[in-house]
Amino acid sequence: MAPEKPLVAVTCTAPVNIAVIKYWGKRDEDLILPINSSLSVTLHQDQLKTTTTAAISKDFTEDRIWLNGREEDVGQPRLQACLREIRRLARKRRSAGDEDPLPLSLSYKVHIASVNNFPTAAGLASSAAGYACLAYALARVYGVESDLSEVARRGSGSACRSLYGGFVEWQMGERADGKDSIARQVAPESHWPELRVLILVVSTEKKLMGSTAGMQTSVETSSLLRFRAESVVPARMAEMTRCVQERDFQGFGQLTMKDSNQFHATCLDTFPPISYLSDTSRRIVQLVHCFNAHHGQTKVAYTFDAGPNAVVFTLEDTAPEFVAAVRQCFPPESNGDKFLKGLPVRPIPLSDELKAALDVDPTPGGVKYIIATQVGPGPQILDDPQAHLLGPDGLPKPAA
Amino acid sequence: MAPEKPLVAVTCTAPVNIAVIKYWGKRDEDLILPINSSLSVTLHQDQLKTTTTAAISKDFTEDRIWLNGREEDVGQPRLQACLREIRRLARKRRSAGDEDPLPLSLSYKVHIASVNNFPTAAGLASSAAGYACLAYALARVYGVESDLSEVARRGSGSACRSLYGGFVEWQMGERADGKDSIARQVAPESHWPELRVLILVVSTEKKLMGSTAGMQTSVETSSLLRFRAESVVPARMAEMTRCVQERDFQGFGQLTMKDSNQFHATCLDTFPPISYLSDTSRRIVQLVHCFNAHHGQTKVAYTFDAGPNAVVFTLEDTAPEFVAAVRQCFPPESNGDKFLKGLPVRPIPLSDELKAALDVDPTPGGVKYIIATQVGPGPQILDDPQAHLLGPDGLPKPAA
Repeated sequence: MAPEKPLVAVTCTAPVNIAVIKYWGKRDEDLILPINSSLSVTLHQDQLKTTTTAAISKDFTEDRIWLNGREEDVGQPRLQACLREIRRLARKRRSAGDEDPLPLSLSYKVHIASVNNFPTAAGLASSAAGYACLAYALARVYGVESDLSEVARRGSGSACRSLYGGFVEWQMGERADGKDSIARQVAPESHWPELRVLILVVSTEKKLMGSTAGMQTSVETSSLLRFRAESVVPARMAEMTRCVQERDFQGFGQLTMKDSNQFHATCLDTFPPISYLSDTSRRIVQLVHCFNAHHGQTKVAYTFDAGPNAVVFTLEDTAPEFVAAVRQCFPPESNGDKFLKGLPVRPIPLSDELKAALDVDPTPGGVKYIIATQVGPGPQILDDPQAHLLGPDGLPKPAA
Repeated sequence: MAPEKPLVAVTCTAPVNIAVIKYWGKRDEDLILPINSSLSVTLHQDQLKTTTTAAISKDFTEDRIWLNGREEDVGQPRLQACLREIRRLARKRRSAGDEDPLPLSLSYKVHIASVNNFPTAAGLASSAAGYACLAYALARVYGVESDLSEVARRGSGSACRSLYGGFVEWQMGERADGKDSIARQVAPESHWPELRVLILVVSTEKKLMGSTAGMQTSVETSSLLRFRAESVVPARMAEMTRCVQERDFQGFGQLTMKDSNQFHATCLDTFPPISYLSDTSRRIVQLVHCFNAHHGQTKVAYTFDAGPNAVVFTLEDTAPEFVAAVRQCFPPESNGDKFLKGLPVRPIPLSDELKAALDVDPTPGGVKYIIATQVGPGPQILDDPQAHLLGPDGLPKPAA
């Protein structure tokens, strides 16, 4: 038995994921069980990631959490559900007689610190990466090795999809207790190396309805949503899986756009109606369809979550031309910031033919900037103790 | 037998109608048979009407048509279908041995002139009033007395609903030949005298997809549309009929908004997606929901057709407060035009409570103007020969 250490800390990172078959609506609000399966692409952590340190110590008197350097209420129900679930799994493992790698009492309190490497202001859903990272870090610190879908899901439904890299499905499951509502990798991150992801961050001042309240209202009021979940999504899951497996970009792109549109259609069918798309979002939609029409094939595809930002899929060789088209339709405002962040995309001039084909009114500043990224791996453990966000005293280190 | 006259002219007017259960999608493109029934409110012709003169003469060498003073191609298929259908009905009547009121050969050519009393620029669908007026005028000049649903419908589906005043349903029918796809009055214009209609004309420069092409694409690509038509609309038709009959404004208003939203949801589910609502449209939606939430009941209700203009229903005693709220959220630009047209609406100040409750960013000029109107009667014959738009020579009179 190892000598008892005053503090055990684990630091992990986890990715953002973007659904191409959308999750919208729960059949169980408490267990966070969805009304349909969904499928997502895991984005690369070089561009977007959450880093979380979890530390346990007999000296801690209470559970505490810091998000982006600010202490938050640890009592919030979603967080409590994650903590309860991970401790339950840890107890279960011990009672099953497994070797106990960490000689720490399960009653020890935990300190958690978490930061994102992207601005919250970007309006990118960070809760999926956040709860996946939390689940992963807690599992390591408590020595849990079982499937973490339920731990992450209890924090935020789509978080279970951020537990894997590549292409991930969240199977809705059938059981009332949710034990079969789990995430599973469809294909690893190495499967489709040419695939590129461009996040078009759109200006917005509008307060948006949160997705938890939004999907609850949709389930209660939209007759189209139930039909979608029961009669449309199952076939789409099968078709999307095929497109991914065969690297069929045409099929992948078209179905991605159709499913995004149908999700937003069910939001509009909600009462009162929910609108996440702005006029700029709609201009991006128009730009993508113009671009594809010009080429006579689906070379780019958009998807929108519960906000106006577009996530655009394309292949490596098309990225330069599409970025040039975005610059043409949304001339960057000269605010000193870089318009293109993340992976480099070769600047090229737009052909006169394409310029003429882009039937979109130029909207200066409509797109604030682009983050270029690609498909990436699942959560990672950082071995370097320097990476810990909590110091030996269990409190957040001062920001470097 | 009356002495043969060189020219017989009839002049009629017909109203615009606005659907509260929407028509979107045909099951037969040629016969213009819808995939679901619809229900509309006929607007008063004091504010919005089409006037049409039809004249026949043995001296005319060809069919001709003038719209708003400009000669148009008489060969367009929809117009030809109306002419064929009215002549078929006239022949049928004569062969049935009915008395022949007009001793004119059916082979005589017709001249048609039609004008709207509202600017086309307002973006208000004028085809329904136009084809209803055409059907009505042609029927009078050719002595046809049977149901004109088919004649009007062949011009523009929703035109058959403009053949009646008050509240009108267009029964989809079941027959392949469309003989049972007819309009029918649900309640006359006198039924609900307190009902007011405010048309919020919204600024737009955007080219919109025409409804004919739009609904065809929707039928081909939206899986939600078929479900709506088959599984949602039948119950809504029954419920809307009840609301009208019982003058239940709460029910009427809520269902009107839900059905408008669902129609636009199916447009968004179309591929490529169709967006008729602009950001200003969405601000009007938000304004209406804020207004109703403030009052704790549905006092106003919006509906949108294939464009960004809102048609708002309310009761007489609420109109002044809602108009004041619109002025607050969309401060009129001082361009010299009247902001409020049509029926007078008493100006009142907005209460501080309501002002605070209106969580809508003010958008100066977002609403260009309001047309205040009410429920009105069906097509009318103008007996005064001065009203004819065609002179004794069968050509349009010079505009007065």
